[in-house]
Amino acid sequence: MSAFPLPPGSTLGILGGGQLGRMLSQAASRLGFNVIVQDPQPNCPAGRVSQDQIVAAYDDPEGLTALGRACQVVTFEFENVPAGSVERLQQGGARVAPGPRALAVAQDRVEEKTFLNRVGAATVDFAAVDSLEDLTAALARLGAPALLKTRREGYDGKGQVWVDSVDKAELAWRAIGERPAILEARAAFTRELSVIAARGHDGAVAVYPLGENIHEGGVLRTTLAPAAVDAATQARAEAIARAVLEGLDYVGVLGVELFDIPGEDGGDGRLLVNEIAPRVHNTGHWTQDGCVCDQFEQHIRAIAGWPLGPTKAHARIEMTNLLGDEVDQWRSLAAEPDARLHLYGKGEARPGRKMAHVNRIKGSL
Amino acid sequence: MSAFPLPPGSTLGILGGGQLGRMLSQAASRLGFNVIVQDPQPNCPAGRVSQDQIVAAYDDPEGLTALGRACQVVTFEFENVPAGSVERLQQGGARVAPGPRALAVAQDRVEEKTFLNRVGAATVDFAAVDSLEDLTAALARLGAPALLKTRREGYDGKGQVWVDSVDKAELAWRAIGERPAILEARAAFTRELSVIAARGHDGAVAVYPLGENIHEGGVLRTTLAPAAVDAATQARAEAIARAVLEGLDYVGVLGVELFDIPGEDGGDGRLLVNEIAPRVHNTGHWTQDGCVCDQFEQHIRAIAGWPLGPTKAHARIEMTNLLGDEVDQWRSLAAEPDARLHLYGKGEARPGRKMAHVNRIKGSL
Repeated sequence: MSAFPLPPGSTLGILGGGQLGRMLSQAASRLGFNVIVQDPQPNCPAGRVSQDQIVAAYDDPEGLTALGRACQVVTFEFENVPAGSVERLQQGGARVAPGPRALAVAQDRVEEKTFLNRVGAATVDFAAVDSLEDLTAALARLGAPALLKTRREGYDGKGQVWVDSVDKAELAWRAIGERPAILEARAAFTRELSVIAARGHDGAVAVYPLGENIHEGGVLRTTLAPAAVDAATQARAEAIARAVLEGLDYVGVLGVELFDIPGEDGGDGRLLVNEIAPRVHNTGHWTQDGCVCDQFEQHIRAIAGWPLGPTKAHARIEMTNLLGDEVDQWRSLAAEPDARLHLYGKGEARPGRKMAHVNRIKGSL
Repeated sequence: MSAFPLPPGSTLGILGGGQLGRMLSQAASRLGFNVIVQDPQPNCPAGRVSQDQIVAAYDDPEGLTALGRACQVVTFEFENVPAGSVERLQQGGARVAPGPRALAVAQDRVEEKTFLNRVGAATVDFAAVDSLEDLTAALARLGAPALLKTRREGYDGKGQVWVDSVDKAELAWRAIGERPAILEARAAFTRELSVIAARGHDGAVAVYPLGENIHEGGVLRTTLAPAAVDAATQARAEAIARAVLEGLDYVGVLGVELFDIPGEDGGDGRLLVNEIAPRVHNTGHWTQDGCVCDQFEQHIRAIAGWPLGPTKAHARIEMTNLLGDEVDQWRSLAAEPDARLHLYGKGEARPGRKMAHVNRIKGSL
């Protein structure tokens, strides 16, 4: 394997060619790296800004072997990479970052919460559900309403359903396809926060200021960052991020979604981890215009064995996703003096599809 | 022709695939455009971050016709584009921006200075030189030392020589290859400034704060921006930029190099135009980390018929070019907390070759 840090001119691989892969590729180019993307859609958004694209499914053995051979390190824009794919990449001769452990934990919601609790990161109470009987028992223990989610896959609110009462258990169980699931107790949170953090090959950790997130219909709408939080909350979030990164022996950028639970009777508040994403994260897009080193460059630095970049914010940012035909707002957004547009180069503006985001600069820090 | 503003998803063409083409392509991608580059070097720096590359000489008729057909607008990263090439592009059906007038003026130093004086932008005294006799006469009029330059081509100090005295005239005439030339009087300037400005299709003009430039051996080493100048100097530079842009009916970003001549006995100072570059300019690289809309995005906005972006600086930047093997400094630069690296993806670090630049953030504004 090539020695770290990988010099400019090295080739990096990205599995997945959507907007996250595209912005990773752009950050890698700025540091002088060449990028090859593997994605089944020809001429995908990330492929169009990269040196090359291997047009193949994410788990295509030949594609993965070729990608691993061409690249000194391979990373991914989504967490549902099968363990077998990672092995193929490694057989090609590439490092893979983040590693298989992070993927395995992030792919299974029961594994994930079990891991989180083990490293001291609190979550809502939960129960594994493999049958309707399990679900009924779990509802009795955790109370209703509770949230039933498939253990694997699902994102942006897909594959999950609220169970309002015990007599709705069967309906809910069917709604998620009678698949292995997790039941999560409801959290009495006042807002959703997230923290983006990175860990280098040498174990160094860098944490960005918290963002406050507003979701609509299960999909992120807006992140305000740095969030208005006290120093204790920021410190709690940093401790959680560090525990997760170290517990996974993680290399790269990771997003941690948090529930902010205010303290009662003047006591300390708490942060519960909702979920972790072993990749750059939509709630970290604000760093592109709020920080000297954004989450994309940070991820590239980490996986290439470079020193991590600074995470201090120099501006207050309001990041808003443009979904579906909201992307047509580019005309008016382009005329806003303090708005920075990031368009993903996607062809079809299907309803709800993430097409672009805008970072509005709300003042310097 | 497609109506302005060109929507995201349109295809832009760039003639020339070096670092300027690369950074233009990256800015265009961020706005959702697809980019095709034409450059004779396969897998050139800009081609590696673009959807496609036409591997052909800059004046290759077939390449130009194909580029013009594929693109809604074509621009260039250098000014020595022959007029015939522009016609070919237009025949393919593309707009070309900036237009032929700007190219013609910028390609001939006598035409350039004549134009500048006509629109009210002062320059040093100069004379066209077509023979040794012309040179001797010009030296008698302008005095020695004076600077002899070829009328066409030459950049970064190439194709020019100082003539110290009349008896060195023949030596100088031979040194520049006895080609059509210009003799320029020496300017008593205290420093070199530059201004980057843009003009939209609708005639709107946007001007960035001035930069102060330090050259070494005829090659730009450092730009400090915004330069420490008084409001009158900034206003003078803006008036010059506006006169040049309007005089050329220009669309896109243009760089104007200036000599700062201090006022005598407390009088007003003057700015003389050294030269204009009808393209994004090395002395504007600081805008990438000092402005919300950098010169590359600004150029793309202008040629795509979008509204021009804001030009206010939010940070003080020191931009330094990394020439030849200085690019090896990436290791230490990557560890500097307030440095932002921009590497060009060039293979061979030949002496003096522009390989990268670094923007050091010297405080917010």
